[in-house]
Amino acid sequence: MERRNVRLVVQYDGTDYAGFQIQPDRPTIQGELERALARVTGEAPRVTGAGRTDAGVHAVGQVANFRTECTVPTDKFPIALNSVLPQTISVVGADEVPEDFNARRDARGKVYRYRILNREFRSPVLARYVWHVPHWLSTAWMRRAARDLIGEHDFSSFCAAGSEVRSWVRQLSRCEVVRHDETIDITLEADGFLYMMARNIVGTLAQVGLGRLGAEELPDILAARDRARAGPTAPPQGLALICVRY
Amino acid sequence: MERRNVRLVVQYDGTDYAGFQIQPDRPTIQGELERALARVTGEAPRVTGAGRTDAGVHAVGQVANFRTECTVPTDKFPIALNSVLPQTISVVGADEVPEDFNARRDARGKVYRYRILNREFRSPVLARYVWHVPHWLSTAWMRRAARDLIGEHDFSSFCAAGSEVRSWVRQLSRCEVVRHDETIDITLEADGFLYMMARNIVGTLAQVGLGRLGAEELPDILAARDRARAGPTAPPQGLALICVRY
Repeated sequence: MERRNVRLVVQYDGTDYAGFQIQPDRPTIQGELERALARVTGEAPRVTGAGRTDAGVHAVGQVANFRTECTVPTDKFPIALNSVLPQTISVVGADEVPEDFNARRDARGKVYRYRILNREFRSPVLARYVWHVPHWLSTAWMRRAARDLIGEHDFSSFCAAGSEVRSWVRQLSRCEVVRHDETIDITLEADGFLYMMARNIVGTLAQVGLGRLGAEELPDILAARDRARAGPTAPPQGLALICVRY
Repeated sequence: MERRNVRLVVQYDGTDYAGFQIQPDRPTIQGELERALARVTGEAPRVTGAGRTDAGVHAVGQVANFRTECTVPTDKFPIALNSVLPQTISVVGADEVPEDFNARRDARGKVYRYRILNREFRSPVLARYVWHVPHWLSTAWMRRAARDLIGEHDFSSFCAAGSEVRSWVRQLSRCEVVRHDETIDITLEADGFLYMMARNIVGTLAQVGLGRLGAEELPDILAARDRARAGPTAPPQGLALICVRY
């Protein structure tokens, strides 16, 4: 067979994984995908993921690509891979892409959703997928604060220390805060996300919602370029990578 | 303190439990509630649950009651119990009820929801809470079939063998089939449910949705009073007890 570049759409429950990116001796999404691909293709393909989701973070629309010369038809990869992947990972789409396509480098944008359970008592059936905040969050204040984050900014104040990047400037095109009964969904879309940026934005908006931080302080926090000025990092289990734009 | 009768509203993820009803040496919801109440009250209260959900079945509105003479104020029971219950169980409400209230005997009706994931590939984030049916289900046919189940009928054909009841007649007041994108929710309301009745109705409606059983065969299946005439039992993880009517 000719060499093909194959793109996969992948869903996973990140609870039991140390994140997307492969690590020695720890369960990772990339590690499971590469192991499954080795079994299905008889080769040793390297998988490139669009977003390196952290430990405990979920995905319903992660995108990854790999190169193969095997005989498996492209549209049979989901069923073939799912038969050997753990139940916590599911490949839901596959298509052939140009030879030079790279899921990470070519991504023009990503959408993340963060879900907060905002009620007094925990929920056993939502626990794996929400951050439980038992005190009342004002979504009006959170929306007011979110407005000032939209646009092109230096997001250093929302980036975990120690990350090596060329620039902290990102274009945040969406930051929506919507309450549905007992849950609050925060949808974030950007051309790229710095390390921990989504969870640091959510942690900061939660401080605003609780009244511990003023809804109009976001421009000052951005301008400070100081991680210590923003709120704490929201826990991983509320976050899910929804889709990747190309 | 005076003797009080306390009603609790309880949510749980039934995945790791052998059902609601207490059993020796197996984890049960009733067992966990009684153990938690013993710690909180210093007594040994017996818990009566409205519905005896089966192994693997979930609840967002189970109701239970117990009697106590302890000093804990009624409205503090949720927070006190949740501090000693496993994360998979949450008490979300408590109120005082008349001395003779019995959560099981006094229930006038119950609402169950069954969720089917109807798409080709499994979903890691929904897996614990859905029945994955990878073949297309016609909700139009399912709704047509459901119509004939509504009303007062002898539901023997939908009751697991070996259950000892005085009557198999139940009043099914709701049997709604609604598709939301990739999931199908079946909402069932009745004055009472026979053993496995909800899951046997769903299993039968699924056969109709797949075209393996005619949408107009339900009156004959009911009339036969023969479990072998209806469809197979749907698996437990898609089922949740939504609320109990008093």
